[in-house]
Amino acid sequence: MKGNLLYGQSGGPTSVINSSAAGVFLEALQHSDQIEKVYGAHHGIVGVLNEDFFDMGQEDPEEIALLLQTPASFLGSCRYKLQDPESNGEAYKRILEVFKKYNIRYFFYNGGNDSMDTCLKVDLYLKAHGYECRVIGVPKTIDNDLAVTDHCPGYGSAARYIATTVMEIAQDAVVYDKGQITVIEVMGRNAGWLTAACAIPGTLGQGVDLIYLPERPFVVDRVLEDIQKVYEQKGKVIVAISEGIKTPDGELLTSSSGGTDSFGHAQLGGAAQTLVNIIKERGPKVKLRAIELSLMQRCGAHLASRQDVEDAFNAGRSAVRAALNDRTGVMIGFRRPETGLYHTEIVEIPLSEVANAEKKVPDSWINSEGNGLTQEFVQYAKPLLEGTPECVRRNALPCYPKFKFVQAGSPVTFVQD
Amino acid sequence: MKGNLLYGQSGGPTSVINSSAAGVFLEALQHSDQIEKVYGAHHGIVGVLNEDFFDMGQEDPEEIALLLQTPASFLGSCRYKLQDPESNGEAYKRILEVFKKYNIRYFFYNGGNDSMDTCLKVDLYLKAHGYECRVIGVPKTIDNDLAVTDHCPGYGSAARYIATTVMEIAQDAVVYDKGQITVIEVMGRNAGWLTAACAIPGTLGQGVDLIYLPERPFVVDRVLEDIQKVYEQKGKVIVAISEGIKTPDGELLTSSSGGTDSFGHAQLGGAAQTLVNIIKERGPKVKLRAIELSLMQRCGAHLASRQDVEDAFNAGRSAVRAALNDRTGVMIGFRRPETGLYHTEIVEIPLSEVANAEKKVPDSWINSEGNGLTQEFVQYAKPLLEGTPECVRRNALPCYPKFKFVQAGSPVTFVQD
Repeated sequence: MKGNLLYGQSGGPTSVINSSAAGVFLEALQHSDQIEKVYGAHHGIVGVLNEDFFDMGQEDPEEIALLLQTPASFLGSCRYKLQDPESNGEAYKRILEVFKKYNIRYFFYNGGNDSMDTCLKVDLYLKAHGYECRVIGVPKTIDNDLAVTDHCPGYGSAARYIATTVMEIAQDAVVYDKGQITVIEVMGRNAGWLTAACAIPGTLGQGVDLIYLPERPFVVDRVLEDIQKVYEQKGKVIVAISEGIKTPDGELLTSSSGGTDSFGHAQLGGAAQTLVNIIKERGPKVKLRAIELSLMQRCGAHLASRQDVEDAFNAGRSAVRAALNDRTGVMIGFRRPETGLYHTEIVEIPLSEVANAEKKVPDSWINSEGNGLTQEFVQYAKPLLEGTPECVRRNALPCYPKFKFVQAGSPVTFVQD
Repeated sequence: MKGNLLYGQSGGPTSVINSSAAGVFLEALQHSDQIEKVYGAHHGIVGVLNEDFFDMGQEDPEEIALLLQTPASFLGSCRYKLQDPESNGEAYKRILEVFKKYNIRYFFYNGGNDSMDTCLKVDLYLKAHGYECRVIGVPKTIDNDLAVTDHCPGYGSAARYIATTVMEIAQDAVVYDKGQITVIEVMGRNAGWLTAACAIPGTLGQGVDLIYLPERPFVVDRVLEDIQKVYEQKGKVIVAISEGIKTPDGELLTSSSGGTDSFGHAQLGGAAQTLVNIIKERGPKVKLRAIELSLMQRCGAHLASRQDVEDAFNAGRSAVRAALNDRTGVMIGFRRPETGLYHTEIVEIPLSEVANAEKKVPDSWINSEGNGLTQEFVQYAKPLLEGTPECVRRNALPCYPKFKFVQAGSPVTFVQD
């Protein structure tokens, strides 16, 4: 059907979400017979509610292409949570009003499981109110925790950043003629996919010694034993832990968390320092260092994997094609045939199957000691890191797009801070 | 003169000190008429004293070449400080004994200003005792604080890592529709060269907002004013500070330092968190985040600059050539002719001019507000970041050498822990 397209970015940044944006924009701009205007929402659903969005047709396609090497969320993101229509119908009424005003017939939302929930609710609401619109979810999360899909765009690049960085730290943290224990903290609330990436260089003999995921309870006494054992053997220990590790009673190792975000998730961080403090008290008396990979692991686009950039771009492009084929209420996902050489197929997954669901690292991929990963995990993850994408640089530094950001809405403040 | 060569690495790791090692080894192995054996000390001068060193002639030259893409100190480093010969003559006697035993006639020490001091003392002692040996310093430091030389191998790569990373953080830390202040902590005790690198992408309009070096006193009230001003203008603020910033009374901003290292230097860290705590109390009430670039900035060899790798390699190679020309008591350095296109010349600098001296960022390169750098600095630094070196990868991850590490000494424990 004929109408305009609105695309929004949501949740935490990744190295390749902008590649999905490029996929949506560049594909949609080729179908002006059906898609008249291509809009990009400023700060995701908040931009929709605030009638704040840009006309992407006004941007130079060469600048749009630079999105393929630009980390974070170039249009702005949000962590705004849509309530149920019953408890807060105002937001949905507003979305319908804006969609009608701007004749939005294609809506693409790019995010993780919370965003797929938003997407699903919008799709159901529009259907219930007889407003015809193609609503498609485009997956994005470094956490790799979306259900059903083989993997999520964002994960491969973050995993490549983490694997490369721990290899480098593993060179650095062993140079002195003295004992040293280094604890590296990796993102991941409940799913340990990112922390597991520390196991990938291990197959080359140059990684970390011990890896603890949030999928297994973090038993301090056992961890101290593991560390002591490696220390006695090598004199140096490198430990990787997830920010979300929890003690057997289900409490976060660190309770120094700074409250919760607007989705009710605890704001994490400080797990490495907490473990270092425990080792200081009860472990070997050696030099200790806590390292957080912090924002760098999710925005380190200079280490993006080519596979991941392509997956993200194709997810955006496929979303447009699916919508043009009258598909709605689905998320674009990836399926890996079980046999043969590595390749993935693009599939459509009902939003209801992914909204708010969470995929963890399978228990059988964690070793029996709970301090490392099996080869099955490494075989799964390795292809997702593959390849170094082209990068346009100026003075040895990456280039990001220069957008005109032509306002196409009439911004108001619907969402109060 | 005919004899054996001994090379050692000292001080903090960098992304390219191993390139200097490769320069020394590959050049020296071509002069077997004069240099019979090429040894690499295990943990620098400690390995010399402990008679613990490897026969580099036994390594595959292809593996040695992989040193050009390997961060940290592949032979092991140390922070052992040689006392004055008067206060502790034992160590010098031991060095002379080891040199005689293994007929060491070429000694190369790769490090920063402390290591050049070690180098100088060894050179003077050997001369005073009539032992003929070529003693050459090979410069290395991410801090870029060695005197006389235009720049130091190690700096360009660390600066490229820092500049790229702050560009990425600057994309990430502004995506939400809420205020946010991000404080990035960069290494540098007294010299702000590394923190200054945050100014380089600024010329492309995509860097940090405020930069504070240890060269100027850190006046908290003024910094809070600067932050407030940027916050009111943009709603987001990104601040870069050196770990070594000091308040006007000369105290480190953070006094939570964990003691001192064996050179008597304070162990730094925590400056960003300290500033975040201050902002929390006295600044805008917004989301705050402290980020330490930690070890990654000094071992991020995947972002090494080609110029830096070449400089490091050439410094090692030139050291061998200088020694073969009977030079001793000098450090290899770089000179940049004042006019014309960017290029540098290799020069020899008397060790006495560099030992323990420290070069800071010139006052005229810091802006009048003390919160940024001038274009003169950017013009100086930019060429040092230039170029992306070749990198051999396996499964998208870098490869490091597989050495046999054939022991050529008779290790004893001369240096007690």
